[in-house]
Amino acid sequence: MSKTKVAGFSVSLDGYGAGPHQDLENPLGQRGLELHQWVFKTEFFKRIHGQGIESDALGAATPSAGPRDINNEFAERAAANVGAWILGRNMFGPIRGAWPDDEWKGWWGPNPPYHVPVFVLTHHARPPLEMEGGTTFYFVTDGIESGLKQAKAAAGGKDVRIGGGVATIRQYLKIGAIDEMHLAVAPVFLGKGENLFEGLNLTGLGFGVTSHVATAEVMHVILEKNSGRLK
Amino acid sequence: MSKTKVAGFSVSLDGYGAGPHQDLENPLGQRGLELHQWVFKTEFFKRIHGQGIESDALGAATPSAGPRDINNEFAERAAANVGAWILGRNMFGPIRGAWPDDEWKGWWGPNPPYHVPVFVLTHHARPPLEMEGGTTFYFVTDGIESGLKQAKAAAGGKDVRIGGGVATIRQYLKIGAIDEMHLAVAPVFLGKGENLFEGLNLTGLGFGVTSHVATAEVMHVILEKNSGRLK
Repeated sequence: MSKTKVAGFSVSLDGYGAGPHQDLENPLGQRGLELHQWVFKTEFFKRIHGQGIESDALGAATPSAGPRDINNEFAERAAANVGAWILGRNMFGPIRGAWPDDEWKGWWGPNPPYHVPVFVLTHHARPPLEMEGGTTFYFVTDGIESGLKQAKAAAGGKDVRIGGGVATIRQYLKIGAIDEMHLAVAPVFLGKGENLFEGLNLTGLGFGVTSHVATAEVMHVILEKNSGRLK
Repeated sequence: MSKTKVAGFSVSLDGYGAGPHQDLENPLGQRGLELHQWVFKTEFFKRIHGQGIESDALGAATPSAGPRDINNEFAERAAANVGAWILGRNMFGPIRGAWPDDEWKGWWGPNPPYHVPVFVLTHHARPPLEMEGGTTFYFVTDGIESGLKQAKAAAGGKDVRIGGGVATIRQYLKIGAIDEMHLAVAPVFLGKGENLFEGLNLTGLGFGVTSHVATAEVMHVILEKNSGRLK
């Protein structure tokens, strides 16, 4: 069954999913990178971001680096069976307010690591943006329910993954739209930034931890909604 | 050097150190026990609480159960070199307001697991309470600084351990009195209760994570204060 899920989402021990002061130099906010150390080391990440193949002395392509360990398994699992993504506008870029032009095309270069339709929530309309590798960014201006509806339709029976950021996930949690969350809890405190849990009662929203695995870098936690709330 | 520390203090992934509605049946609040599963299994806990010795078929005392694993090591370490404790009143018992009489002597029976002076913060005076095994409860009514001063004097050069609860730890954090915290982060969400982190910036208070170890049950995190703030 098709799910709406959050996956591979890193948070600090004090609940922050991003540091403060996001900008062009700090797409994840100050110190935000510290949350994601677990994924950077994985074979999955290096492959997706093109750092997994290095030439050896003979010039042959050799897969390199990135252990195929538990962290890698969770990174792979997070990416599996995703038919469409939803991103808050700040996940797409640092620009606030009206788009000055159509120059900004996301943080990821010409071939973003999505390869499916991506619905970007914004108050400012913009034509769809077709990128290389199957990624098309659609800009949704009529609200989060509409964004989810469009994403589900585009996902063709696969899952919809809410990529973030924190504000976007919180909005979908509050309307009961998220079925499952895989959080990667990093052993750091950020002290400030965007807090995923503050004032939000995940237990009250019907979520419980159904499994967890700790690695040296991070604690992976799966939360599933088991109540009868609307989906 | 003598430290003021929090140790072996369990919190949920959403930052709760106790569940809501503490009472006689739920000393840790509703679902609070779920935070402490890691320690209940240890050899240390079973020994301290008298469950570590069971008679075998021949009637000889045989140490039993409770693995001497990483969790046990952290439990032992938390208890090491403690010269005095500080407890908030709710850690001492479920009674609120003035003491009706001197009947309540803590949750732990005649021989509490402290074996050193314990300073209980309260607004209601009461004579010291000498228990078996070296534990004496002193009731401090003139504020948290006074409690800490008395505890340091009584600790005789050893560490002062702030046992909790959450409100007490937060008060001492805010005045910069805590040098080190060992938190045990359990893979559960409580959704409500007493939150250790909410509105508190541990990074801003000078704390950083200096080490962490995850076990199947819990993630142990050591935070140390490395700034020049008052101690």
